[in-house]
Amino acid sequence: MNAMPSIAPPALAISPRLRRTPFSARVEAAGVRGYTIYNRMLLPTVFRTTEDDYWHLREHVQLWDVSAERQVEIVGPDASRLAQLLTPRNLSKIAIGQCAYAPITDGGGGMLNDPVLLRLGPERFWLSLADSDLLLWAKGLAFGMGLSVDVFEADVHPLAVQGPKAETLMARVFGEAVHAIRFFRFARLSFQGHSMVIARSGWSKQGGFEIYLDRPELGHALWDALWEAGRDLSVGPGCPNLIERIEGGLLSYGNDMTREHTPLECGLERFCSLDSDIQFIGRDALRRQRTRGVPRLVCGVAFGGEPCPPLTERWTVEAEGKRIGSVSSAAYSPAIDCNIGIAMLATDATTPGTSVSVVTPLGQVEGEVRDLPFAVPPL
Amino acid sequence: MNAMPSIAPPALAISPRLRRTPFSARVEAAGVRGYTIYNRMLLPTVFRTTEDDYWHLREHVQLWDVSAERQVEIVGPDASRLAQLLTPRNLSKIAIGQCAYAPITDGGGGMLNDPVLLRLGPERFWLSLADSDLLLWAKGLAFGMGLSVDVFEADVHPLAVQGPKAETLMARVFGEAVHAIRFFRFARLSFQGHSMVIARSGWSKQGGFEIYLDRPELGHALWDALWEAGRDLSVGPGCPNLIERIEGGLLSYGNDMTREHTPLECGLERFCSLDSDIQFIGRDALRRQRTRGVPRLVCGVAFGGEPCPPLTERWTVEAEGKRIGSVSSAAYSPAIDCNIGIAMLATDATTPGTSVSVVTPLGQVEGEVRDLPFAVPPL
Repeated sequence: MNAMPSIAPPALAISPRLRRTPFSARVEAAGVRGYTIYNRMLLPTVFRTTEDDYWHLREHVQLWDVSAERQVEIVGPDASRLAQLLTPRNLSKIAIGQCAYAPITDGGGGMLNDPVLLRLGPERFWLSLADSDLLLWAKGLAFGMGLSVDVFEADVHPLAVQGPKAETLMARVFGEAVHAIRFFRFARLSFQGHSMVIARSGWSKQGGFEIYLDRPELGHALWDALWEAGRDLSVGPGCPNLIERIEGGLLSYGNDMTREHTPLECGLERFCSLDSDIQFIGRDALRRQRTRGVPRLVCGVAFGGEPCPPLTERWTVEAEGKRIGSVSSAAYSPAIDCNIGIAMLATDATTPGTSVSVVTPLGQVEGEVRDLPFAVPPL
Repeated sequence: MNAMPSIAPPALAISPRLRRTPFSARVEAAGVRGYTIYNRMLLPTVFRTTEDDYWHLREHVQLWDVSAERQVEIVGPDASRLAQLLTPRNLSKIAIGQCAYAPITDGGGGMLNDPVLLRLGPERFWLSLADSDLLLWAKGLAFGMGLSVDVFEADVHPLAVQGPKAETLMARVFGEAVHAIRFFRFARLSFQGHSMVIARSGWSKQGGFEIYLDRPELGHALWDALWEAGRDLSVGPGCPNLIERIEGGLLSYGNDMTREHTPLECGLERFCSLDSDIQFIGRDALRRQRTRGVPRLVCGVAFGGEPCPPLTERWTVEAEGKRIGSVSSAAYSPAIDCNIGIAMLATDATTPGTSVSVVTPLGQVEGEVRDLPFAVPPL
């Protein structure tokens, strides 16, 4: 193994361009240790250690400030036409009150974002964004096509409540109606007399809800109410957890997929209605790629026994001495007891069990391809 | 004065989504102490202290990794039509080889970006971006209007050489042809046999150049060549300097202006051809605002003698006890010997000399309106 290049964690210079959230003061009081910047907003990345945060998430309940999931609102007579143009997913089957994971593709089929779409009305949608200014793509299309639609960033700040005790906690604050919300559905429930969208969703596989706070001035009160009601449930601060989301096979836009990748390459074909006659941008490109064959595919990789260093740039993956792709997210999983990663590899190398080696900054480490999500031992 | 809220500088969690640059390894070796994230890329903010960096920039020459100024390339038969639609600036007068500061506006006249546009050919442009995904706006318009044009992010990474000794240093590395490049013009000059765009431009008022590196693998060699050639010129690492750019009245997109502001409010009317018959997006809205009167305007503010804390959220500005706007950038200027800021205030309060008070986290501080750029004593 080679010596590891020493890179001191740099300080983050904060300016108004990198926006704070309605929960930032509470997040700081709760001891946030690291931030990333996501849609030009602060998104916490760690509170105690990534591993401690992981175990706590699997056992208890956490409050996540995911305000950085900005909402693009599309509303007006042409709203459903524009929304359908944006995504290969067939939206005609998405009811009011329903959420839908919706890859967004450009003319070449490249991924521009992968929001959760919320259908608020017949002609009103929110796109709860991953990290890109999809607002500008949607506005540009609407302007260029002369559509009768308003497209803007809504003043909405999601707070996620995640973990096995999330439902118990949510019911204490929002009432028993919480139990009736099905997975990827939302309802409007009241907090301090104000009705808000609450969905059973979130960027973990531990269950939970997302509260779409549309009155920023209620941020502290909402956080405090959940905190107080959750004391005996060991409620804690949290954030999307690197270990848990890799185990769960949740892809991160910008890390595991970019404009260079199609949803077929990202393993998202089940969200693409390529055979229907719906009109969406990128349809021809995706149909062509499906016919010719998808050259590379997202998969899991398990490698090495010793915890790998933080992945800050993609790591090359080799098989039989040849480069076959790269790992884009990686972490040591204490539950599986090895390093796990999300990789984009040559399609013919993605059969589970295929031997690969990962070129980390600490040297080459042997591993094998695994299915996503990973098989995780129960607690 | 109240107690200052204690906010420890958070660590920045780096992942592949926040891209490194062809110069990152050199920037780290040179001792970068802080980063911001700009267009999802690392942008250094400080090397020694902001004040030390400031004096060095005014006296010597610095290398700035401004790769985060991503280039949107627009090329094809409709390129000049699309470029003109994007900006109120009249591009018919911009020659090949010329740079032009070009505010970009949406249908309501709101600022979407303020790039420097480079005209590379009759139907080929680069937009050297501030911090927003203007790529998606331009692509969306082109797709929606069915324009015959390619719009993509070029693999180009600007390195700025800034400071009074910049021209001397550049001539040593690129030859005497550097002297012939006029302000906001560019030429193609060779480095190691490879020809690159080099402009006399940059985000300081100290003079200098930007090298548009389009072969990332030459990044280290280019940095090293400039470093070696500049030893006797006291060459150092640098970055856009908060003090110097506020003194110079250089507005920062995302900080001093956002989608909520028009170029008229940002003091950029001289870049807007409102009376010509050129077609651009936002023209009607801007004409209407000009007729009705601009309600708020960017200006300078000088306040207090004791150095202010870092500005992480906008600070309210009051006059006669009433809120009249906010400060969006602030720093202590050692040359002017007071705090200086860029503010957006009610238009009738922007006459230089108007008394205002700034509500900082350390309490209310008295000050006055000043012209931008600030009058700075010579060295």
